[in-house]
Amino acid sequence: MRTPAQNAELALLLEVAGTPKPGNVDRHRDFDDLRFEHFLAGAVGASEGLRAAEGGGGVGDAFETAVAGMADQRGGNTQFGALLLLVPLVRAAGEDALTPAGVESVVADTTVADAAGFYRAFDHVDVFVDDPPADADDLDARRGSDAIPAVEERGLTLSDLMELSAPEDDNAVEWTTGFPRTFAVAESVAAGTGPVPDRIADAFLAQLAEHPDSLVAKQHGREVADEVASRAAALLDDEAPAEAVDAFGDDLVERGVNPGTTADIVAAGTFVALERDEVVV
Amino acid sequence: MRTPAQNAELALLLEVAGTPKPGNVDRHRDFDDLRFEHFLAGAVGASEGLRAAEGGGGVGDAFETAVAGMADQRGGNTQFGALLLLVPLVRAAGEDALTPAGVESVVADTTVADAAGFYRAFDHVDVFVDDPPADADDLDARRGSDAIPAVEERGLTLSDLMELSAPEDDNAVEWTTGFPRTFAVAESVAAGTGPVPDRIADAFLAQLAEHPDSLVAKQHGREVADEVASRAAALLDDEAPAEAVDAFGDDLVERGVNPGTTADIVAAGTFVALERDEVVV
Repeated sequence: MRTPAQNAELALLLEVAGTPKPGNVDRHRDFDDLRFEHFLAGAVGASEGLRAAEGGGGVGDAFETAVAGMADQRGGNTQFGALLLLVPLVRAAGEDALTPAGVESVVADTTVADAAGFYRAFDHVDVFVDDPPADADDLDARRGSDAIPAVEERGLTLSDLMELSAPEDDNAVEWTTGFPRTFAVAESVAAGTGPVPDRIADAFLAQLAEHPDSLVAKQHGREVADEVASRAAALLDDEAPAEAVDAFGDDLVERGVNPGTTADIVAAGTFVALERDEVVV
Repeated sequence: MRTPAQNAELALLLEVAGTPKPGNVDRHRDFDDLRFEHFLAGAVGASEGLRAAEGGGGVGDAFETAVAGMADQRGGNTQFGALLLLVPLVRAAGEDALTPAGVESVVADTTVADAAGFYRAFDHVDVFVDDPPADADDLDARRGSDAIPAVEERGLTLSDLMELSAPEDDNAVEWTTGFPRTFAVAESVAAGTGPVPDRIADAFLAQLAEHPDSLVAKQHGREVADEVASRAAALLDDEAPAEAVDAFGDDLVERGVNPGTTADIVAAGTFVALERDEVVV
């Protein structure tokens, strides 16, 4: 019987094993400098922070520990966004409260100290972050722990920070709305048929079609995110041959378009499905 | 900085990611009922037992815990043999003694209680085991924990059991001779070039060529094991094209020939290389 922390780690591994996931590293695709094995090492390295969350440790500290461990490989940022979702979910699971209400309660209880932990996590790895609003330069996440005095002065909790990020970041939207897409992915992975990694790949394409990826929007603009969603939807509607999905993936990789937020939410949903025994490997 | 238990888990993941490894599940090959994701879940499930070994827990108990966790997936036996090698190595690493002498000392210190833990491990998963010698029917590993009274009556330690198994099982040979192939694999993985999973696949083929696989010999006879070794050697000598290695793998899978002992030793050697920082992912 796996613990919540073990199920979270397994969810990270199953997510990267699911293929094809157009635009992402997966069982059958490496990028030049970011390879499958970096995700394996990232998942293993995150385990200590995930256990801290399971044991009731502060969400910010647990997240920082998970990210520091994740970063102990040469690929760079592998699972920062997925861990941002998993840490409160694992914390809720550790309290036998892995429901939208349970994780909302974890989010509501976050503190300014948790916000500081979140900023310290940026010291361990380079993460793509957009420019902050004009009046929030002192909160720029790229400042890492240097931003903590401003966070403390403003009295912002981690939940407050996610409210500020939600307009641009669908992981933050999960945080502030009870993780609706995460729980929906859990249902879709549970309802699927065949091997779990195949169900994960199906859930990824469905999510990509339904919600323009917010990382793609930040990096390439909203029009590109919409285009990617439309093409994903067409592949769903047509029951497209595997070659068409692969060609879509080739094109995204060539253009440097990486729907990373979608992958994060699919990993989080896979955790929920594993933890609730809705799916068995 | 990963702990010894984390490096052992990562070694299991990297081993199954290494491809091609003819006759085994790998990043690019599943069997019908034994798939890549079963190895991912097996590695994650083994982590508690690996942490017990790292913390100085009894080798037999740690092994049983690791195997019980590994078995919490539907593929059956994924990493029993690899864990039999990893547990004493992780224990030695936890004592800052990851050398042939250090692990020989762990082996020499095993007790009758460790032997009992080894037998209990067989209660958790079906493992292929050959018929025991005529005078050792009561020690048949297929009896699982039912064999413990006989083990206790004979006063056999886990090291004694490995001496008895060594004529038929190259993992037992590692146990009784200071893990020579394990440390050789670590050197070869460290000396390789390119991504770590590729080095692992290279080490696998070289080991398969040099040492007829003892699981293949037990399941199919020594002649088949020798034939497999010769064909592996020919592929090494010729710098064969990828297609020839794949065809070799297809043939082995079709015949149900699974060089599992070679994979076990390669996983153990990968752990040593990671733990000694001789290779970085």
